[in-house]
Amino acid sequence: MNWPSHGSNPQYLYGAMGLMLPEDYTDFSANINPLGPPPALKEKWQEFYQEIFVYPDPYATKLKKRIAQQEQIPDQSILIGNGGAELITMVARMLAGKRVLLIQPTFSEYEKACKANKCEVLYHHLKGPDFELNQDELHKKIEFADALFLCNPNNPTGIQYPGSTIISLIEECEQQNCLVILDEAFFDFLVEYDSFIPYINRFSNLIIIRSMTKMFAIPGIRLGYLVAQPTVIESLNQLQSHWSINTIALLAGELCLQDESFINMTQKYIRDERKRLFAFFKNNEFDVSSSKVNFYLLKDPLLNDQFPLFEFLIKKAVIPRHTFNFPGLEGRWLRFAIKGREENNALMEVLADWRHHH
Amino acid sequence: MNWPSHGSNPQYLYGAMGLMLPEDYTDFSANINPLGPPPALKEKWQEFYQEIFVYPDPYATKLKKRIAQQEQIPDQSILIGNGGAELITMVARMLAGKRVLLIQPTFSEYEKACKANKCEVLYHHLKGPDFELNQDELHKKIEFADALFLCNPNNPTGIQYPGSTIISLIEECEQQNCLVILDEAFFDFLVEYDSFIPYINRFSNLIIIRSMTKMFAIPGIRLGYLVAQPTVIESLNQLQSHWSINTIALLAGELCLQDESFINMTQKYIRDERKRLFAFFKNNEFDVSSSKVNFYLLKDPLLNDQFPLFEFLIKKAVIPRHTFNFPGLEGRWLRFAIKGREENNALMEVLADWRHHH
Repeated sequence: MNWPSHGSNPQYLYGAMGLMLPEDYTDFSANINPLGPPPALKEKWQEFYQEIFVYPDPYATKLKKRIAQQEQIPDQSILIGNGGAELITMVARMLAGKRVLLIQPTFSEYEKACKANKCEVLYHHLKGPDFELNQDELHKKIEFADALFLCNPNNPTGIQYPGSTIISLIEECEQQNCLVILDEAFFDFLVEYDSFIPYINRFSNLIIIRSMTKMFAIPGIRLGYLVAQPTVIESLNQLQSHWSINTIALLAGELCLQDESFINMTQKYIRDERKRLFAFFKNNEFDVSSSKVNFYLLKDPLLNDQFPLFEFLIKKAVIPRHTFNFPGLEGRWLRFAIKGREENNALMEVLADWRHHH
Repeated sequence: MNWPSHGSNPQYLYGAMGLMLPEDYTDFSANINPLGPPPALKEKWQEFYQEIFVYPDPYATKLKKRIAQQEQIPDQSILIGNGGAELITMVARMLAGKRVLLIQPTFSEYEKACKANKCEVLYHHLKGPDFELNQDELHKKIEFADALFLCNPNNPTGIQYPGSTIISLIEECEQQNCLVILDEAFFDFLVEYDSFIPYINRFSNLIIIRSMTKMFAIPGIRLGYLVAQPTVIESLNQLQSHWSINTIALLAGELCLQDESFINMTQKYIRDERKRLFAFFKNNEFDVSSSKVNFYLLKDPLLNDQFPLFEFLIKKAVIPRHTFNFPGLEGRWLRFAIKGREENNALMEVLADWRHHH
């Protein structure tokens, strides 16, 4: 079957399964803040209209300044992107023809972008249900790679790797002349987190990519940023198309970063819902990955391939993310976003129903 | 001086000149429809808000279908872009390391994108004030090129090349195994125009790029499309980052294409204003390029370098587009957008003032 390569846009999933998308459904396949965007965005929306008549600032000066201030780094260390996906594409372009190490299972865009740029792709496979980074094994592979993508917290597992493990990985990579692309698309959902951004001063081989679309629930308008030493930023900047980030994204980004309490509120909401969900899963004998963020892997340990559960949910208009295109998972887990309280209740109800019959 | 590489965002132009951007100014440097976007866009704007919470359709199915229907081509011949600039960047990526022929003066992004992809750039220079395509000279250069960018109507001159000249150029390129990238960013401002899109069936070496941001006055949200044979679309598609076109652009695009009368109204408005302006320029001894669209080159024939006139206008808060980074122009012309009646009046007033003193 030709499965869609990502979550969201469930019409393509139902289409691939030969089903009609129901009118009412709950989409757990996109890992977006269930609280929606910061309220200021709705208030300003009408004002944004007249901004579509003019070209976006191609240098994103204001947004860059705000991020620079917040992260205490120079503007020259920042590149704004048309979503994290564009930044991944640009990094892959920079790596064209080189050897890239991927730690599977992980976000599928790294592989797609690297292969489109004729990179040689090497793999390191993490084993479930822990999906932990085994440093010794991984370090041995670094000498064969020019670059390594590390997603932390990892998508699709939601697992946060220990800070010390990441630092020692970056150090090893530095010695082996290997670039580290640390994708922190979901870092701001972590309650306990020490920023790796200060390390860009020490490590010229470190690139950090962040998304602003998950926490601020604005995937429709695309926004992300990349942090690295200025020489790296300069080379990447050459590869970016002019006016790549639209005006609405730039304005929304500036607005979102002003509301710190929104992030704290979201983190607490997600943590409480995760506790509630995970307690239910334990009581009802579902396995989950030990996620620290707003999504998790789930499986019914009574099944190997989870397709029957997947199909059951889809027919109930409850939409998980399939894992057929995550090497190392291949359908043996399902991924769910943590959504609002009511939607999570609905999920638990459907899963209780499944458990009742299986 | 470090001149900004494009029009719009005049804060950078004033900054480069060591001046403060005045509070009230008229920006003639961006070639955008002076009538603004189609009215339906404003009506729907509030509804668009809730669309930012979800990922854009990565396949742009609905917009593609509408364009396919309008242009009578299969969906598989269309690629939607995050503005024309992204499509140019992707084509240049595809051409990495190859020899590319540019017909100067023309849109500066071709050269920038090709050089970022280590292409060897060859030039064919058009001579003002006619800036006509000399076929014989141009054809001789094709054998040395793997691809050629042709902007029609050309930016910055506004000149429309004869259809027969373009067809014979594409034919010659086909024989010489040279790709033709025909950039039609401003085609929809032409009153008399025969579409080249039907030729994609005949010529596998033809790529057509169109912008939707100029006619529909939506440069802030980025939207364009590319038309070619399906095999070309497939290779380019591999190079595009996922979710590259934001949801607002997709929705706006669908809406804009529904309003044909808007395009007709714009064409007539621009034509009438151009007549009025050009009559004034003739009477006041300013030279202009024989533009058929919504912008034109202008110079005072009493000056060689137009910098004194440029500076005079800038200080009067009337902002033309400098031509320092257009090879073949290098400041000997200024580019102006055709704006609304009142703004065009203001321009004529300032130019009359200049003529009075020079």
